[in-house]
Order: sequence, then structure tokens, then C-alpha cells
Amino acid sequence: MTVRNIALLLAYDGSAYHGWQVQKNAVSVCGTLQRAIGKATGRPVTLHGCGRTDAGVHAQYYVANFCTGSAIPVDRLPYALNSHLPPDIAVRTAAEVPSGFHAIGSCLRKEYTYRVYPTRRRDPFYHNRAYFWPYAIDLDAVRAAAAFFVGTHDFNALAGAAGNTKTTVRTVHYCEMEEKSPLVQIRVCANGFLYNMVRSMVGTLLYVGMGKLAADDLPRILISRDRTLAGPTAPPEGLYMTGVWYPNLLFGVDF
Amino acid sequence: MTVRNIALLLAYDGSAYHGWQVQKNAVSVCGTLQRAIGKATGRPVTLHGCGRTDAGVHAQYYVANFCTGSAIPVDRLPYALNSHLPPDIAVRTAAEVPSGFHAIGSCLRKEYTYRVYPTRRRDPFYHNRAYFWPYAIDLDAVRAAAAFFVGTHDFNALAGAAGNTKTTVRTVHYCEMEEKSPLVQIRVCANGFLYNMVRSMVGTLLYVGMGKLAADDLPRILISRDRTLAGPTAPPEGLYMTGVWYPNLLFGVDF
Repeated sequence: MTVRNIALLLAYDGSAYHGWQVQKNAVSVCGTLQRAIGKATGRPVTLHGCGRTDAGVHAQYYVANFCTGSAIPVDRLPYALNSHLPPDIAVRTAAEVPSGFHAIGSCLRKEYTYRVYPTRRRDPFYHNRAYFWPYAIDLDAVRAAAAFFVGTHDFNALAGAAGNTKTTVRTVHYCEMEEKSPLVQIRVCANGFLYNMVRSMVGTLLYVGMGKLAADDLPRILISRDRTLAGPTAPPEGLYMTGVWYPNLLFGVDF
Repeated sequence: MTVRNIALLLAYDGSAYHGWQVQKNAVSVCGTLQRAIGKATGRPVTLHGCGRTDAGVHAQYYVANFCTGSAIPVDRLPYALNSHLPPDIAVRTAAEVPSGFHAIGSCLRKEYTYRVYPTRRRDPFYHNRAYFWPYAIDLDAVRAAAAFFVGTHDFNALAGAAGNTKTTVRTVHYCEMEEKSPLVQIRVCANGFLYNMVRSMVGTLLYVGMGKLAADDLPRILISRDRTLAGPTAPPEGLYMTGVWYPNLLFGVDF
């Protein structure tokens, strides 16, 4: 039996899940996928994701890998797995990868997109899909503030307490705000993210956008390493994983 | 006690409902709203909608009216009602209207938008929100076909069997296809619609788009009054009510 290492490109609406990671007594994206792979291949598997998304966080582009002795051709795997998956999780593509490939360990950088809906009204079509923000946003101020995140910094002031990592230094490649009516979205790409880092960055940028913080406060907040100086952690429903990069182009998918 | 006639501008995601109309043993949009109005005003009410949307059909712009002796100011009503409504139904605005106003009887014309997602893949973010259509669409052919629907015609060939109406003649003001990546959407405005008319029009246009019918077949199909000559009825999840017009401008809302 030849064992293959298979990478999956996934998309999921995280609204109904307690995050990516398998937990006791809670439905997770990873657990749901592992069950579907087990049904399709006839054997239990362990699936390795490219990051732990929290409860309610979504992914349009998420990579996970698993090893299997199953002979199902990779181009058939998406169909085989999707037939065992609920409609809020989709396997978009599958590829055979070298045995040393690991979805998180091999990852060079990731992109998250945070979607804010600046409105005071309810909108059934964005419920659980964006953060309803009832204030006007000074987009120029937010753009000026976001620029301070770019580069290599100690992001401790923007890390959730649950974090557990050797260093809190990360390199942000870009942090951009764009208007995509009716949404305002913030795209952040980095070589890695601390726990709750994107949501803390967004909460801080929204404080700048409403005038509670000034763009020029950002360097001081970063240097302080003090989480209490930054803005609040924005809620999970606005957050989407939208990109993962590996040393070799893995999935050529447009968004 | 002064009795006022109140018109509500609503939006709803119809996925979880058995349509607008109150039914025994099934959750309806109208029933859910009537309960919320009852809670907010302290009295049971009868709510009159501007049309019967089927199970799974959505509305971004839907008008309904009810009479009440409650003194809640109209500008407070949306907040009062939304606090008793699930997040898939929203009261966008409320207005006091003349006692003779009736959401369906006073309506001059309506617009529906049908959203097609031309793709073979799954997309968790459009599940229940668009019709996944696994074929390429010849947009020019569809546009040519859609033009034949415009004007005053007998639409019996495009009416569902459950229809029950004096005449099957309707006037279509426009029927336009537009690309709104990743969707293709068809907007139809008419002075009224037969049962399942929009979904039959869309099913017929998609048959043209895949070459199963020719655009030039449309006049013959209309004249035949024969439902079996037209294309199939497209499913409900792609259908949205997106506009209702009355003799006096009721709600000045942009989309």
C-alpha cells in the first residue's frame, strides 16, 4: 500500500462550528472533515490544518493535509468528500504533495480578510458574515493607521491572552483597507499571526476610524507591548481566512 | 383610540421559512412577523404582504401593512419589532399610510431578481442564496431571449399550475441580465406576476443559455400558452423580491 500525502483546498462558513480544532462535545470543522474523509476512504485519518480558526470564523481559502493509503484519484477526491460534507464546508481541490509537506509547518504566509458592515440597520443577508459596525469610519485615518502595522514588529500589544508562542514578533507584508460596498474590508498578510491578532488589529483600526484613537498612536501602542492600550478584539463573524502561501505554488485559485 | 395603517419595509432570508403566507404547522415569514408585532404592540394583528413568496424565496425589499391602535411612533417601530424578530428577518423602515393603502392591492409593479451562480463547484457562502448552475451561459442568447418577455403578453406558458387568476396577461416592463461576479442575475419588473412566473422565465432563459432552446423560440412559446414548451421552473433559492412600487413614493431606499 502506497501512502500518499494529500493537501485539500477548503472553503467553509464557520457560523455553525466551534472553530477549526477538534474539541470534546463541540462540532468542529476539522472533526467534520475527518469524519467525511473516513467515510470516503474507509479509514480514520488525522487532518492537519493551516491554522486554528476560532468559533464563527470563516475561510474562503484554507489548506489542510492528511496521509492516506486510499487509491482514490486526487481529481475525484473533492466529489467523494463533498458528498459526505454539509453544504457549509466545501473541498475545492485536492493535490498530492511531498511526504514532508505539512499544512501549517510548510506555510510561508497567510492572508486574512476582515469584513465590516458600517450600518445601524439589520441586514439578514450579512448576519454571521460581517461585523455590523454602527459608526461612520474615517477611511483615511484607518489607512494611515494600518500602514504602521506593515513591517516586522513585536505584536504583543495585539495578541490575545490565550497565545502561547516563543516570540511575539511577526512580519506583516500588507494591511490594506478597501471599500467593497456595502462592506469595508481589511486584508492583512503576514508570515504568521498571534492568537486574535487580526481581530485586535481590526478593533484598533475601528477605534481609529471613529476617533477614539489617532493613527499616530499606533507606533506607541506597538512599542508598549501593552494589550490594554490597543482597541478591543473585533468579533469572529467578520473574519475570513483568504490565502495561504507555500514554497511551491499549491493551488492556483483566483478570488 | 386612533387606528393607524402602518406599512413596513422588510428584508428577509427565506431559507428557514415555508414562504410568506401563514400555514398550519409550518413557520412562515408573515406568521413570525405577526407574532413580533403582537408582542411589541400588545395586540394580535393581521399583516398583509405585497405577494406570496414561496418557501426558500428571499426579499431585500418587501412591503407589508397592518392596522393598529398602538401609539408607538413609526420611527421607533423598526427597533421595537426587530427586538422580537430572528436575525433572518429585518424591519428596515415603517411609515404611516392612508387607511385605504393595501400592500398588495395598491401595488403598481414589482421587481424580482434571480441570482444564478454558474459553477460546478460548491461554495458555502452562496448555499441557499443562489442557484448553482453547472453549465456555461451564452449571455448574448439569454439577453436576446429576455427581450421577448418585455411588453404585454399572455404568460400562461410560464405560469405554475397552482395559479388561480382571472387573466394570465401581464405587462413586463423590463427583463435584464447582468453579470455581477461570481453571479449572473436576471432582474424582471412587471405590473404583476403569475404563480412561479419568474422562476419559469429563468428556467426558460437558462435553457436558451445552454442551447436547449433558441432565443427565437420565445415568441412561439408565449403564443402557445403551453407550459410544457417552456423551460423548467428554476428553484426558489435564487429568487429575491427586490422592488415594489406604489402610486406615491413610499420608501426611498437605495439598493
